[in-house]
Amino acid sequence: MAMKKKPVTGMKDILPREMEIRDYAIGLIKETYKTFGFTSVETPAVEHIENLCSNQGGENEKLIFKILKRGEKLDSAVTEVSADNLNVLTDSGLRYDLTLPLSRYYSNNANDLPSPFKALQMGPVWRADRPQRGRYRQFMQCDIDILGEQDIVAEIELILATTTLLGKLNFKNFTIRINDRRILKAMAAYSGFAEDSYDSVFITLDKMDKIGLDGVREELLGAGYPAENVEKYIELFSLISDDSTDAVAALKVISDKLGDFLGKDVSENLDTIISSVEGAKAADFRMKFDPTLVRGMSYYTGPIFEISMDEYGGSVGGGGRYDEMIGKFTGQATPAVGFSIGFERIVMLLLENGFEVPGSGEKKAYLIEKGMPSDKMQKILSMAAEERKDGKIVNLSIMKKNKKFQKEKMQQEGYTEFVEFFTDRDF
Amino acid sequence: MAMKKKPVTGMKDILPREMEIRDYAIGLIKETYKTFGFTSVETPAVEHIENLCSNQGGENEKLIFKILKRGEKLDSAVTEVSADNLNVLTDSGLRYDLTLPLSRYYSNNANDLPSPFKALQMGPVWRADRPQRGRYRQFMQCDIDILGEQDIVAEIELILATTTLLGKLNFKNFTIRINDRRILKAMAAYSGFAEDSYDSVFITLDKMDKIGLDGVREELLGAGYPAENVEKYIELFSLISDDSTDAVAALKVISDKLGDFLGKDVSENLDTIISSVEGAKAADFRMKFDPTLVRGMSYYTGPIFEISMDEYGGSVGGGGRYDEMIGKFTGQATPAVGFSIGFERIVMLLLENGFEVPGSGEKKAYLIEKGMPSDKMQKILSMAAEERKDGKIVNLSIMKKNKKFQKEKMQQEGYTEFVEFFTDRDF
Repeated sequence: MAMKKKPVTGMKDILPREMEIRDYAIGLIKETYKTFGFTSVETPAVEHIENLCSNQGGENEKLIFKILKRGEKLDSAVTEVSADNLNVLTDSGLRYDLTLPLSRYYSNNANDLPSPFKALQMGPVWRADRPQRGRYRQFMQCDIDILGEQDIVAEIELILATTTLLGKLNFKNFTIRINDRRILKAMAAYSGFAEDSYDSVFITLDKMDKIGLDGVREELLGAGYPAENVEKYIELFSLISDDSTDAVAALKVISDKLGDFLGKDVSENLDTIISSVEGAKAADFRMKFDPTLVRGMSYYTGPIFEISMDEYGGSVGGGGRYDEMIGKFTGQATPAVGFSIGFERIVMLLLENGFEVPGSGEKKAYLIEKGMPSDKMQKILSMAAEERKDGKIVNLSIMKKNKKFQKEKMQQEGYTEFVEFFTDRDF
Repeated sequence: MAMKKKPVTGMKDILPREMEIRDYAIGLIKETYKTFGFTSVETPAVEHIENLCSNQGGENEKLIFKILKRGEKLDSAVTEVSADNLNVLTDSGLRYDLTLPLSRYYSNNANDLPSPFKALQMGPVWRADRPQRGRYRQFMQCDIDILGEQDIVAEIELILATTTLLGKLNFKNFTIRINDRRILKAMAAYSGFAEDSYDSVFITLDKMDKIGLDGVREELLGAGYPAENVEKYIELFSLISDDSTDAVAALKVISDKLGDFLGKDVSENLDTIISSVEGAKAADFRMKFDPTLVRGMSYYTGPIFEISMDEYGGSVGGGGRYDEMIGKFTGQATPAVGFSIGFERIVMLLLENGFEVPGSGEKKAYLIEKGMPSDKMQKILSMAAEERKDGKIVNLSIMKKNKKFQKEKMQQEGYTEFVEFFTDRDF
């Protein structure tokens, strides 16, 4: 078989310039989250097919890269396989997010972990999406989660840690949109929608960004929901203007209107999250209560949040509370809340903005004439070792025939100082 | 389907204590190799099945985790599959090393890369080995490679970079065994073995560690090789005592004996590598010429090397020159040499030796009474932000009923200072 030079469809080779920014961002993420008491954990890239297909991820199941069974199990599977039972061929697959593996990890290792447990995970995930510009089938996720803490101090800490990090990466003037799954439900209940139609109503609501309030009204009416419910629902959203700057006031308008449909603690907690974060924030952003924020994942149970940035149309991260997922592994409910940043988008923005990695240090090149005798070579190597000890970058190369061209090329890589060593000269 | 709590067979969840050491080692590796002019690159975890099965990796092919085709391609494959053509089900697989993907990467991106190109790769690889103690089916590899440099300055730099790193990780008194594929061949030729039997002879030679010189003799005779050849071969190895401390002298004994069977430049180059490294080394180790060193991979073409450590029976890393692999992608020969450290073994040794990550910093816990009003909460958060700015770890938790137990637990995690905040007290 002929060798293929390109990466597999939808995945990419990462060049040194991008890697430099990635490495810098990874270092800063670990350093920043560590000061908030998060500790790193890692799970295997491969997960049980049963866990991946447990439907926690909804649509994600279609996107799983499945791994073929091996040996006798594969031989036996091949004799039974048909178009209707393709899953007999597989026993595992590549993880499509870090939340499900973390829940499994916590269930498996709870006895060896503190409670609450503050976890930092960075690692690749895989989704067999249709490839498109800027979206790849392998991409890095970066999640922080607090497991075993039901108090909203968890939400507050997650939002502060994430926004502190974004500030350190020089991002400014961004917005954390916040809502609560229980507010979404209360608004639908208040408007008279039947409980089994909530998910479908929320799918329409989630399009607000694109189709506007009138669009949402049209789509709900078109789907056959009673006009009375739809109008009551739409009226709720029109109570808050889109450029409302006071998140706490906006929240109060909605919660007053919803009355007994919404538990008092839900709006109080959201109020405390918003004002605590606003009061203690260490970066340039604002909190915005946004009753149209849905977040796709069906596993969320409480507050949900998302980062919006002017420089980038969509979301560059988000998260929320998912108090019921770990219980699916252990049979025992464990409160959990997480915040994921869009690592790839953030790297792309830094790359596009010509971000300079700070403190890259001096880069020095030693050009060595070919055939350097061993004793002189030792001297050169010792000089290099001495400079490297101080963290200086010293790159040894054999001198090329076209030395001028060689130097120009190295200058493009950031080498500013050149030292030449000849076999017939002393140094 | 029921959810599974354990990781998939042969893979592992990594707990915080180990992750702390891994993160530290990764940071040190990047920092150290950077000073030698290496730059990070990354390739996808998934590779074309054609590349993985190109037989460069020999035995590795059986160990590939293969990925199922998707959609219509899978439907169609299922109608054709039988025990004899299982590969119709797959189009890709998980990489089993970092060398083959790097060769593909270089072929694909050579125009955007400097020449020579010094690459650092760290990332997981997967092998469906029989699980055994301390060996996992997913493990981290850490490779440095120099592509496009035919001079032995490449070998010297790789060995110095690797040993400098090991020194920084506090490893002492280890040995770099070195040999050359061409010496292996010359020794077989000198002894009169037929060229097509070399690989099989080397497989036996590779067992020297375990079965000794007599064992190698017995096995070669048992395999039916002429006694005359076997005795001539064995005599060569007996010329060097196992505790020979002078690598250059040992090399001279063998190369003098081999005469014209060995190119003069081969032994001269090896001599220069050994004496240059010995002369400039920045860590406590020794170079040892070892004519029994084989290294499994058939792709090596020149010098080969391996790290032996007293604390650990086997090899903790190795590498060599593979000048012919990149040509399989490009049709144009490109010199290449690489050195891989056994990251997992090194982490295991550090863990077992109770390695303390330096400069972990002060760890402080804020214990907050439940129901803290928003304005007081803001004050607490601002205090924490101030301390975190200086890199201090501050962990906010809600005070538990059994506060004594809570503190004891946190002390086990390394928290040394506790600050308590009550709703009804000023602070």
